[in-house]
Amino acid sequence: MTTGVRRRMGVDERRQQLIGVALELFSHRSPDDVSIDEIAAAAGISRPLVYHYFPGKQSLYEAALRRAADELAGRFQEPPEGPLGARLLRVMGRFFDFVDDHGPGFSALMRGGPAVSAGGACSRDAMSTTNAMIDEVRQAAYEQILAHLGIAEPPARLQLVVRSWVSLAESTALIWLDGRRIPRAELELQLVHDFAALCAVSAAYDDEMAGILLRILGDEPAEGPFGDLVGRLVSLAPSLDRVPAQRLR
Amino acid sequence: MTTGVRRRMGVDERRQQLIGVALELFSHRSPDDVSIDEIAAAAGISRPLVYHYFPGKQSLYEAALRRAADELAGRFQEPPEGPLGARLLRVMGRFFDFVDDHGPGFSALMRGGPAVSAGGACSRDAMSTTNAMIDEVRQAAYEQILAHLGIAEPPARLQLVVRSWVSLAESTALIWLDGRRIPRAELELQLVHDFAALCAVSAAYDDEMAGILLRILGDEPAEGPFGDLVGRLVSLAPSLDRVPAQRLR
Repeated sequence: MTTGVRRRMGVDERRQQLIGVALELFSHRSPDDVSIDEIAAAAGISRPLVYHYFPGKQSLYEAALRRAADELAGRFQEPPEGPLGARLLRVMGRFFDFVDDHGPGFSALMRGGPAVSAGGACSRDAMSTTNAMIDEVRQAAYEQILAHLGIAEPPARLQLVVRSWVSLAESTALIWLDGRRIPRAELELQLVHDFAALCAVSAAYDDEMAGILLRILGDEPAEGPFGDLVGRLVSLAPSLDRVPAQRLR
Repeated sequence: MTTGVRRRMGVDERRQQLIGVALELFSHRSPDDVSIDEIAAAAGISRPLVYHYFPGKQSLYEAALRRAADELAGRFQEPPEGPLGARLLRVMGRFFDFVDDHGPGFSALMRGGPAVSAGGACSRDAMSTTNAMIDEVRQAAYEQILAHLGIAEPPARLQLVVRSWVSLAESTALIWLDGRRIPRAELELQLVHDFAALCAVSAAYDDEMAGILLRILGDEPAEGPFGDLVGRLVSLAPSLDRVPAQRLR
């Protein structure tokens, strides 16, 4: 069935096809458990022909990871229009779509998965390459969020909040994948709220962060995710009564 | 100077000394940059004698990591007395002491550092061992926090909050180490607040979490870290005015 197709494919087209097939396999099982034979079978070509395009499993894994990284970084792109809460919520939806589509591969990668190679050993270079790609995606996410905040030169505290929020999104997704016991829509909204919460905690002790937070909240509609959160928190916070009056200036 | 001491040391004592020396060196430079020769010199013994006690750098690294992991896990232990906020703040103080003492080693480890071995290559087993130790420390921290909350069978949402907070503490420490641009005392307090904030976000949409949060806050003195945070947040939240009145029931 595939023979006719194979004969017509150019080198780049064949490489792209193999990357797609490999990414699909690496996404649904731990990459360590996927063999070159399976990749060859799924692509409808022989094992030696796979090696003709990629010298080994590690190079195919890296190419698949490269495509996945570009795709994931792209999901943090969002038109700079409308309230920030709604934008972040759309980004989180696309992020969880990605995590959902590539679950086992995503888990293996983030849990030190770059150990993939044919012989069961891994090279320092392979680890550096995959770690560098992970850092690239984190950096892309970080820059996207700052762009949405409209802040070109972020103070150290804002850098910390955005970077630690990106890491929180990663760990929340990993914990979700381990059993999927909480609906993902709830976690997408929760992460948007977590962003506001981490900003708010930082703002509580720093004037510059307070200014940034007030600007964000000032643009939010009361019915958006941030307004909704504030309303719900106030509704369950009878303990506010116990705060000394002089603090409630 | 050390010869007399060396002669009197038993096998276990010598191993413990080497682990201590290695941990000190691995803590202050990336473990990849530390040689067996340096460890031998710092311990005042010959290189062959180091190999007599440890078959290679990887096994010495793992032993040093084992000691560091036990020590770090121990820092999350705290008498179950007094308000939770104050307990968490003491734990964060000890956590940052550890991070401060072992900075470069901690960074290397958390950034996929387990690539250490004599030949510049790493084995799957070595990675599994170090990853398992990292997970062990995370699990110990997770269990300590749950013990302080007095909850033996945590619902899925509380598990998520505690695990993701542990991961937030890790990433905050790593970001801090990269330049130390924010005073660590501020970050220790911030992480305590982040814990309350993550609980609060989860509680905003889940009754069981709301019950847990109210019980925590109910035990907190107004002048403790949680009460302080609530007061400060309210003081900077004029945007509360814009929340529709029906939400402020």
